[in-house]
Amino acid sequence: MPHGADSLLLQLFTIFVWAKVFGELFERLHLPAVLGEILAGVVLGPYATRFILPGDTIYSIAEIGAVFLLFTVGLETSPSDFIRVGKLSLRVAAAGIILSFAAGFLFLRWHSEPAHEAAFVAAAMVATSVGVTARVLRDLQAHKLRTAQIILGAAVFDDILGMLLLGILVSTVRGSGGVEWVHLGLVAAEAAGFAVFMIFIAPKVVNRLEPGIRQMQTKDAPLVLALALCLGLSVAAAHIGMAAIIGAFFAGLAFADYSPRWNLEPRAQAINQFLAPFFFFTMGARLDLSVFSRSVVLVAIALSVLAVITKIVGCALPLWGEGWRNMLQVGVGMTPRGEVSLIVALIGLQMNMISQRAYALVIVMTAITIVLPPPFLKMLFAPTSPGGGAPNAEEPDEVQITGQLG
Amino acid sequence: MPHGADSLLLQLFTIFVWAKVFGELFERLHLPAVLGEILAGVVLGPYATRFILPGDTIYSIAEIGAVFLLFTVGLETSPSDFIRVGKLSLRVAAAGIILSFAAGFLFLRWHSEPAHEAAFVAAAMVATSVGVTARVLRDLQAHKLRTAQIILGAAVFDDILGMLLLGILVSTVRGSGGVEWVHLGLVAAEAAGFAVFMIFIAPKVVNRLEPGIRQMQTKDAPLVLALALCLGLSVAAAHIGMAAIIGAFFAGLAFADYSPRWNLEPRAQAINQFLAPFFFFTMGARLDLSVFSRSVVLVAIALSVLAVITKIVGCALPLWGEGWRNMLQVGVGMTPRGEVSLIVALIGLQMNMISQRAYALVIVMTAITIVLPPPFLKMLFAPTSPGGGAPNAEEPDEVQITGQLG
Repeated sequence: MPHGADSLLLQLFTIFVWAKVFGELFERLHLPAVLGEILAGVVLGPYATRFILPGDTIYSIAEIGAVFLLFTVGLETSPSDFIRVGKLSLRVAAAGIILSFAAGFLFLRWHSEPAHEAAFVAAAMVATSVGVTARVLRDLQAHKLRTAQIILGAAVFDDILGMLLLGILVSTVRGSGGVEWVHLGLVAAEAAGFAVFMIFIAPKVVNRLEPGIRQMQTKDAPLVLALALCLGLSVAAAHIGMAAIIGAFFAGLAFADYSPRWNLEPRAQAINQFLAPFFFFTMGARLDLSVFSRSVVLVAIALSVLAVITKIVGCALPLWGEGWRNMLQVGVGMTPRGEVSLIVALIGLQMNMISQRAYALVIVMTAITIVLPPPFLKMLFAPTSPGGGAPNAEEPDEVQITGQLG
Repeated sequence: MPHGADSLLLQLFTIFVWAKVFGELFERLHLPAVLGEILAGVVLGPYATRFILPGDTIYSIAEIGAVFLLFTVGLETSPSDFIRVGKLSLRVAAAGIILSFAAGFLFLRWHSEPAHEAAFVAAAMVATSVGVTARVLRDLQAHKLRTAQIILGAAVFDDILGMLLLGILVSTVRGSGGVEWVHLGLVAAEAAGFAVFMIFIAPKVVNRLEPGIRQMQTKDAPLVLALALCLGLSVAAAHIGMAAIIGAFFAGLAFADYSPRWNLEPRAQAINQFLAPFFFFTMGARLDLSVFSRSVVLVAIALSVLAVITKIVGCALPLWGEGWRNMLQVGVGMTPRGEVSLIVALIGLQMNMISQRAYALVIVMTAITIVLPPPFLKMLFAPTSPGGGAPNAEEPDEVQITGQLG
């Protein structure tokens, strides 16, 4: 093979191994592997040691990795769960989103950032990633508690509402130098229509197609169809002016109810295991360390504090009257951000809607909101002495814990 | 996302869907899907309708697809099977390889082709791909017959010997204008040493590492390690002057015995399902249709006839004395070529060792040897009237049928 292919394979190998080594070290420190994979990119990438300088093809593979990452998140977000979890979870998700978006936006506007940059960073602050929380709940065998079910339900709404918000934002600013507020209503209706179609109608279409899919001669026909829809909706979402990953997310959503029967999730995860490290590594490799002046560090810390407080307060409020422990369980449980926040920042960077500085703010904010909550969650969800504290499980059915991180 | 990423996703989507549509049509015509995927590339590609012009990134993804394709072939080629199947299978594989290589090489030299081109085309004629045969055997419930076991065993040797031959060939011609026969002994020893290490020692290393792998915190640690080894050995094989895919094949081989326990094969197949269509499509897209003059078509047909006859005769001979039916079963069963032949031709093309004409010859030869055998196999393996023809199964244990095609 020509030199190009060899050097591509060498880059793939080096990045994959270093990302996984850093991920393993982080896991052993009880930190999420994704942070390690990002740090590998920061440390080895062009802004620090310059040990690995990812080429264009690596960045392209990373983008495909982001598409499959969101596809898998969608695949784990079952619309029938979404319809089942009820209004309390919706209120928890909505309050957390509104509060953190508003606080982030206003804080950055107050710091004289342009409106589109403030909007992107605020949108990145919105998306709860429940993977860290789910792992703590699973370790403590606490995932059947009512508050745990509220968190897992709210995470479903959170994903969908976060994607809607991103879609509206991208559509609104695309092609213009800033936010075109006048198109906002139209774009919001478009995004909402897309979401409603994918949540309520697409699963029924898949259901109708099922006999035909079973008659297909192609090997692994359901997986092939799911991959085709993932790519197709990514293209469609990009074409109508939203981000490609939004299409991938909703493609996953359309197949979510069929994922167990067709064994889609472990196979989509296998593709993820290969592609996602390139996404996280290049996230880190794009981080320009020279932006970290004293003032940027202070702003990053302030923004992270805001991100934590707004989720705790916003997500706890709908449980008013259920006691501080339950409220804090849900609030702290909804605090961690994750890969969606990172992708929102990346899209902003690629659209020239946010600066390297704002990109750095989001990475720091994500890292802090991932690292801080687990110790508190362990305290809050720890089994208490008999008679006190956490109520017992009310619903006996097993809740599927989604591990969206790493 | 920027325009570049959107157009890449559009290409990925278009190629994936068209490859799968052609594959599905071929399956319905009882032809292998890979031929359909290649034809999609021919028909839609730059040398025919110019409907899809794959970009550099698509070609890179196709190369990664070839690496994973050979990794999966290795994963399905268990070394413990290899050690078990015995000498008769080895003789069948070796005789078929020697005869088809010699016939192909001499035929093309007689047609005044340069030695390196003749050697590459002959090497492409060597690799039996047992997927087509395995499917016929499975459909006829004939895979427990002794001849079926000989075929499946010989296919294992065939893969390994074919990879050895390719490794020797690539190492010998690399960096020179032609075959450096003087280095042949050294290079053969190197390739053989690599193969022996991967077949006999690497599985023991994996075995030793197993407790450590189980203690790893990384999610899906066995899959991650297997992918890392696949990329690492690809790089290593390319670095020591062999083709990258040879490293990938042997990496699969090292994990083959652990594949069932760690559930590696379905997950490697999922990555394949995504990447392989790009490999097969671009195989077709590289086929310059203008080379098909009347004389090239005649040479292609002659070469295909040689490819069929040499495998039938070579692979049947070691069964001399067991009756014409058993001999033909094994001979015809070993006739189909597949993805390894295609990859050998592609490597030759990329190394400028073979011309567009020779590349076309291999594609035609592969297609003919895939399409011809199944009807004859069905006749040869069809259950006969009681007392006549095929002997019953002698070994009661189930043979795992590997579906290496599509």
